[in-house]
Amino acid sequence: MAQIKSAGVIGAGVIGSGWIARLLLNGVNVCVFDPSKDAPTNVDKVIQNAERAYKNLLKSKLPKKGSLAFATAVSDVAKSSDIIIEAVPERLSAKQSVYDEIESNGSKDLIITSSTSGILPSDLQSEMKHPERLIVVHPFNPVYLLPLVELVGGKQTSHEVIEKASTIFTHIGMFPLHIKKEIPAFIADRLLESVWREALWLVNDNVATTEEIDDAIRYGFGLRWAQMGLFETYRLAGGEAGMRHFISQFGPCLEWPWTHLMDVPEFTDELVDKVSNQSDAQSGQYSIDELMQKRDDNLVDFLKVLKENRWGAGNVLKEYDEALSSSVKKLEFSELNLLQPIDTYTTHIPKDWADYNGHMTEARYLDCFSEATTELMTIIGVDEEYIANVGSYFTVETHIRHLDEVLIGEKIYSKTQVIAGQNKKLHLFHWLHHDDGRLLATAEHMLIHVDLKTRGASMPSDLVMDRMERIYNAHKKLPTPEGISRAVGDKV
Amino acid sequence: MAQIKSAGVIGAGVIGSGWIARLLLNGVNVCVFDPSKDAPTNVDKVIQNAERAYKNLLKSKLPKKGSLAFATAVSDVAKSSDIIIEAVPERLSAKQSVYDEIESNGSKDLIITSSTSGILPSDLQSEMKHPERLIVVHPFNPVYLLPLVELVGGKQTSHEVIEKASTIFTHIGMFPLHIKKEIPAFIADRLLESVWREALWLVNDNVATTEEIDDAIRYGFGLRWAQMGLFETYRLAGGEAGMRHFISQFGPCLEWPWTHLMDVPEFTDELVDKVSNQSDAQSGQYSIDELMQKRDDNLVDFLKVLKENRWGAGNVLKEYDEALSSSVKKLEFSELNLLQPIDTYTTHIPKDWADYNGHMTEARYLDCFSEATTELMTIIGVDEEYIANVGSYFTVETHIRHLDEVLIGEKIYSKTQVIAGQNKKLHLFHWLHHDDGRLLATAEHMLIHVDLKTRGASMPSDLVMDRMERIYNAHKKLPTPEGISRAVGDKV
Repeated sequence: MAQIKSAGVIGAGVIGSGWIARLLLNGVNVCVFDPSKDAPTNVDKVIQNAERAYKNLLKSKLPKKGSLAFATAVSDVAKSSDIIIEAVPERLSAKQSVYDEIESNGSKDLIITSSTSGILPSDLQSEMKHPERLIVVHPFNPVYLLPLVELVGGKQTSHEVIEKASTIFTHIGMFPLHIKKEIPAFIADRLLESVWREALWLVNDNVATTEEIDDAIRYGFGLRWAQMGLFETYRLAGGEAGMRHFISQFGPCLEWPWTHLMDVPEFTDELVDKVSNQSDAQSGQYSIDELMQKRDDNLVDFLKVLKENRWGAGNVLKEYDEALSSSVKKLEFSELNLLQPIDTYTTHIPKDWADYNGHMTEARYLDCFSEATTELMTIIGVDEEYIANVGSYFTVETHIRHLDEVLIGEKIYSKTQVIAGQNKKLHLFHWLHHDDGRLLATAEHMLIHVDLKTRGASMPSDLVMDRMERIYNAHKKLPTPEGISRAVGDKV
Repeated sequence: MAQIKSAGVIGAGVIGSGWIARLLLNGVNVCVFDPSKDAPTNVDKVIQNAERAYKNLLKSKLPKKGSLAFATAVSDVAKSSDIIIEAVPERLSAKQSVYDEIESNGSKDLIITSSTSGILPSDLQSEMKHPERLIVVHPFNPVYLLPLVELVGGKQTSHEVIEKASTIFTHIGMFPLHIKKEIPAFIADRLLESVWREALWLVNDNVATTEEIDDAIRYGFGLRWAQMGLFETYRLAGGEAGMRHFISQFGPCLEWPWTHLMDVPEFTDELVDKVSNQSDAQSGQYSIDELMQKRDDNLVDFLKVLKENRWGAGNVLKEYDEALSSSVKKLEFSELNLLQPIDTYTTHIPKDWADYNGHMTEARYLDCFSEATTELMTIIGVDEEYIANVGSYFTVETHIRHLDEVLIGEKIYSKTQVIAGQNKKLHLFHWLHHDDGRLLATAEHMLIHVDLKTRGASMPSDLVMDRMERIYNAHKKLPTPEGISRAVGDKV
């Protein structure tokens, strides 16, 4: 899936670990250098959180996880990587010495990226032998979930490197935002910084606590910004007259003395204590790990909602998911083994399919069977294009037996036997199994081929009919499934 | 539901209309004064958008919609209201003359609220006869969806009025944030203002377009702020060491010259043109109304996600929804008419139950039947408390017939007949109808009473058994439902 096979990550703090998790889960082999003894443990924890989040995020299967290695020197990382991600502390000299060691040991085509939040790429590359391959690729925490990366080239960065980086990071599910003019702190951190400064004044002056400030954001404009940002939101605040009206009405208010502007509160012990203590009072009932999982759950669900609504960050997720799906080798009809039921569906039970005590709810069993039916339809040629142009199968009758329970996060799979398939009718039997082999449920369905314009019964295309009949003729030699043709309440 | 029966709204712009919609849908009668001829049309449009959004937002039924009247003078509004919402343009004198007219015509206990974004309540109330009843209640667009209201009292505002306002706005689903220290622009607008200023500089200096700035927000930190705000997010950026670590590491960066701080870009025609044209390029493919609906769809879904995850603004929605639900009179078992099938479920088909062309998907039919079963269970006494302490019914077998199609947004209802109900077994038959009477589907279910600790079959309580049998004994005299006891594929 990814365009790169291996990446070297220098520095495994919060940002470096997030990069490692995103890369590994996208099938990239990662070699890490971090001088801290705790790095492997911390990285492992972030990978676990990322895996937990991705289970719910994607419909498609991720590629096989990449391998993870820890090197004892930057030089070793340089030798084994297609791209370098530098995420060491924000000191120009520390970063420059990393680049120097990489340039002395790696190929001269190796792309070197910096995750710096604000140092100019022109400064970063100023001492390099091959400065054209240095680019700022600034991600946001948690790196494995937030799509944004700011790409900023320095004076000497080549266009080719910017384009390559854009392709590489798109392929691992991100949204590269190329910032054309190099300024300190780029875009997002300038905005964040202005809010951070104002918020600290509010705490310092006892106008509000950290919790009250967070509430003022997350119960209000934070919900707007997650989908539209600042300008598009204000376009709507202008009513039908739009942005021109809004800006002429409200722009001048900016000159009112509403913010602290220039001044920065002094970082006295007292202020640090106040902020830390208020933050403890606000969030101290949760461990950092609990908070991270809660954050990830919310982010995953926001991204899924936006994907469903085809909006903003959801479009990035949609394209990523579809690209993953199309990179999975599709089973060709000719490769099907018709002498056994067909493998139709597999998933980890998503979190939102649970009842209050973590079991999959009744209605979601039909979701699974519906997916299994869709897969069978795809196999016989009823794919998106066919549905758009010819027709589809509608379920007219369903019988489900619930035989065992399953918990969220657990893996399930389905198998499907064609009971009858001729003319307009398709009669299916599905088994739903737990990954450990237990039979969880069975379903029997009668489907009718329908013309989606008239919404009445119609004949399938010749290709679909042929495939359906070939499966049917093979499957009718299989044993009759146990539990077929039951009415509700029949004795066993 | 609401604590107030009638409200007067002065000014029906974007904010005033949002207030009107929220109040009406919560059963409050609203009397409006706005000098513009277009006000009724504009208000009507906002109400329609709000109704559209609420259809998907709540599980519970809203109370009967309030009545809407337009007055020709502020004095008439004052006479007929329990509370006044002033949402006129941001000029102190204009607001003060509204208060004067209200004080001359309404009762002296009438609470007067101002939706001002930044004027101090002490200034607003300075000329009033009864200044203790003036309070700033600052909402956020769209007022009918965003929970936040900032409550700010002035020097003369009484504690009683602040508490009353807090109760009133909580009851219509909002999150009142009481700001204890009065400062210009309160909390949220100070934060917004700092970002707005910095963003305008980025556009002015050609660092980024309005679209790039919005993307930097909504693909990145905007997703964080919708759930955690600033401080709780940064608590996580410090890793396990938390806020104290973060603030000592990053606080000092604030002194770096990363933002434009003091300066405000001059509002030249050129800058106004630039921002407006970029906004057109970014969002001009959508009408304002399309954008508003998209925004509302996303907000509704975010709020539902947060409710599901029991977090932040979702908790506000959860409490609101539950309060609505508990205010609906529950059907007593003794009031049931047992001589006919029982009314079990009614809903408007939510947007996320649709397939790509707007029909309810196959699996969602089982959601409806599952809700109908839950309602029947509640009626016989299997409620939350029973489930927590005694047991529940598990579905072991289901048969569904799909007979007709239904589109999202349309209303459906179900009726339920008990086919058998004795000992551990409960056999149900549901009909699902379109609001226009068409039969959409039927379902037949066999359920078994289960002890939730052992997860094995068990006997229901005496009360549950008694009610179940009483319904069964009455329902067995009803005609046998057409379509019962079918196996999939049986001939009609």
